[in-house]
Amino acid sequence: MKLRFKKEDLNKGLQSVQKIAQDKSNNISYENGLLIKAIGDMIEFQANDYDMGIRTEVPGIIEEPGEVFIANPFLIELTRRLPGDEIEMIKEDGDTQLLLKGGKLKFECLTINPDDFNEVDIVENGTSSFTTDSITLKDLIDHTSYACSTDTARPIFTGTHIDVSGTTLNMVATDTHRLALKSAELAQPVEQPFKAVIPSRLLMEIARQLPTDIPQDVQIVALRNFMTVRFGNIFIRTRLIEGEFPNYRRVIPTQFTSTVTLNRQEFTAAVERASIVAKDAQYNVINFAIQDGQISLTSQHPDYGTIEDSVSCQIKGEPIRIAFNGKFVLDILKHCHSEEIVLQLKTSSPMLVQDKDEQNCVFVVTPMRAK
Amino acid sequence: MKLRFKKEDLNKGLQSVQKIAQDKSNNISYENGLLIKAIGDMIEFQANDYDMGIRTEVPGIIEEPGEVFIANPFLIELTRRLPGDEIEMIKEDGDTQLLLKGGKLKFECLTINPDDFNEVDIVENGTSSFTTDSITLKDLIDHTSYACSTDTARPIFTGTHIDVSGTTLNMVATDTHRLALKSAELAQPVEQPFKAVIPSRLLMEIARQLPTDIPQDVQIVALRNFMTVRFGNIFIRTRLIEGEFPNYRRVIPTQFTSTVTLNRQEFTAAVERASIVAKDAQYNVINFAIQDGQISLTSQHPDYGTIEDSVSCQIKGEPIRIAFNGKFVLDILKHCHSEEIVLQLKTSSPMLVQDKDEQNCVFVVTPMRAK
Repeated sequence: MKLRFKKEDLNKGLQSVQKIAQDKSNNISYENGLLIKAIGDMIEFQANDYDMGIRTEVPGIIEEPGEVFIANPFLIELTRRLPGDEIEMIKEDGDTQLLLKGGKLKFECLTINPDDFNEVDIVENGTSSFTTDSITLKDLIDHTSYACSTDTARPIFTGTHIDVSGTTLNMVATDTHRLALKSAELAQPVEQPFKAVIPSRLLMEIARQLPTDIPQDVQIVALRNFMTVRFGNIFIRTRLIEGEFPNYRRVIPTQFTSTVTLNRQEFTAAVERASIVAKDAQYNVINFAIQDGQISLTSQHPDYGTIEDSVSCQIKGEPIRIAFNGKFVLDILKHCHSEEIVLQLKTSSPMLVQDKDEQNCVFVVTPMRAK
Repeated sequence: MKLRFKKEDLNKGLQSVQKIAQDKSNNISYENGLLIKAIGDMIEFQANDYDMGIRTEVPGIIEEPGEVFIANPFLIELTRRLPGDEIEMIKEDGDTQLLLKGGKLKFECLTINPDDFNEVDIVENGTSSFTTDSITLKDLIDHTSYACSTDTARPIFTGTHIDVSGTTLNMVATDTHRLALKSAELAQPVEQPFKAVIPSRLLMEIARQLPTDIPQDVQIVALRNFMTVRFGNIFIRTRLIEGEFPNYRRVIPTQFTSTVTLNRQEFTAAVERASIVAKDAQYNVINFAIQDGQISLTSQHPDYGTIEDSVSCQIKGEPIRIAFNGKFVLDILKHCHSEEIVLQLKTSSPMLVQDKDEQNCVFVVTPMRAK
């Protein structure tokens, strides 16, 4: 095999596959590593582990076709720092070494037998599928996946639920203490309702790769226990989490006694300050008292003292006292964007948080026993 | 006690003392914490632990004199984030709570009995002393302290040696594998030769506080087992390391067979690339072969392969093959600044590294057995 790449093309290709190819403790196992395949007029990079597989095409010049399987954690760091703009890859037949050349630098890198690589097979059709654009999809992932659980004892909550019917794409994640839901409209209605729960860390890796400079079509296909995502010259296959995602509609409250509108930045700053002592104490409890045109926040640390703060706001409905986990509230506020946000509350029941004039995105957080 | 501060003044004062007042695992012990003392027309902040003590004056308005002793890890983070520009501190006599007010925020913070604080006593005269300026001193610390050892089994090497005689100020640190020495001229000769070994982490904390926008006089006084540093309105007292610092002059080689001049950035980039595989392998060995107008670098990792690179250079004297720890070489190169650097070598003896045309700063690194 003999290939020539522009440095930026090689790095772009390596970056798409690196998380799967290299982000592991033991880098010489066969679940890691990366397949470079130059056949016909196409150079393809593939990586595949039990959770996720990816294949992408990389522009370059094929002087001699062939394929190599490399499991080398240093490859990317090195190519990124290589001098010169052109990089050569040479592997003599029968030789187990891959030679990488850039400027005056030579890297002789051990390879594995390509037959041991488990290729990512392209799937065209599945039980259900839909098409959206990269910017919309990334936006939905960014606004929901963070709310999932990390407790593997209940796998279903470590995932993000994609729920499509008609022209409505819903994405939702919850750890049972807080929930994030965002919706978008599809250009084309789906034939079959699409329901899948994707491990959130895999979905976030997909989001990392979605182009956001210009919107690009993304085709998503579900099939038995996996899902495929296709955009540009990238094809990704991810494992799904088995089991039924709970009915999130039922979790989202609809009855409220108090509606509060206030400045997002002022509120965020006040919650951050109250969290300074709360986060170190148990449960990160912040008490909120909403009345007389302001929210008062109080938090305390048994050893270090008490913080009292307040933010003015518009209140519709009854005054209310309620406590929340400061971290959960901050997580939500990080994902709000408009100048003003709206809180909807009812004594000892979950709070609904939304950007003002934004109906497609709702955040829910359950209260704590006040301290 | 009742005080009013401009937010920036309070934060400046807190920042000078925080490392000593708060940078500890257990923040409620008496070695931590911070004394605020408003007596006469002066507000003073003090912090003191076994290693280091600091006192500084902070501008502010004393409406009611008094003193408080606080051990609170959240104080600085909170005051930094306080709304409004003015901050009030109020402690009623007999009350153990200190009330901090900024904007709408109130922080009630527990205090300790001020009698339990071990005050930092000002020392005017010592066995020996010298005066320099803050920029020179910081520059010397930055270029030498990093080279010390972290192995507390040999305390003397965890420190940085200050060695002053006549008008020459030498600062030197070594971990026995590499050494860094920088010198500066004093405006006034010292009466007594000044020799002290200061724990490097304390010296670096002092460097952090030295003003570098405009040079400021710094007076340094040695006395028995401690040293005092005075500049602006800051007074610092640090513990010294007992014992004799080895004769560093004898460690610095003077006989060489080869002198190499080369571009600093090109060489640094090449060493960084060679380190990519070396740093993961044992000892971080990089082999250097100097001949025919270039330095070739080779490094290898048993599992991942071999890197070969080279940089062109001017060579005076004999060709030479020698191996060094890549990390040590990089540490040195980070502290070089000129476009070209000079390496002076001799087979299996230490290498001298200097910025070209810079005599006041020398770095030494001992070779390794080539692999």
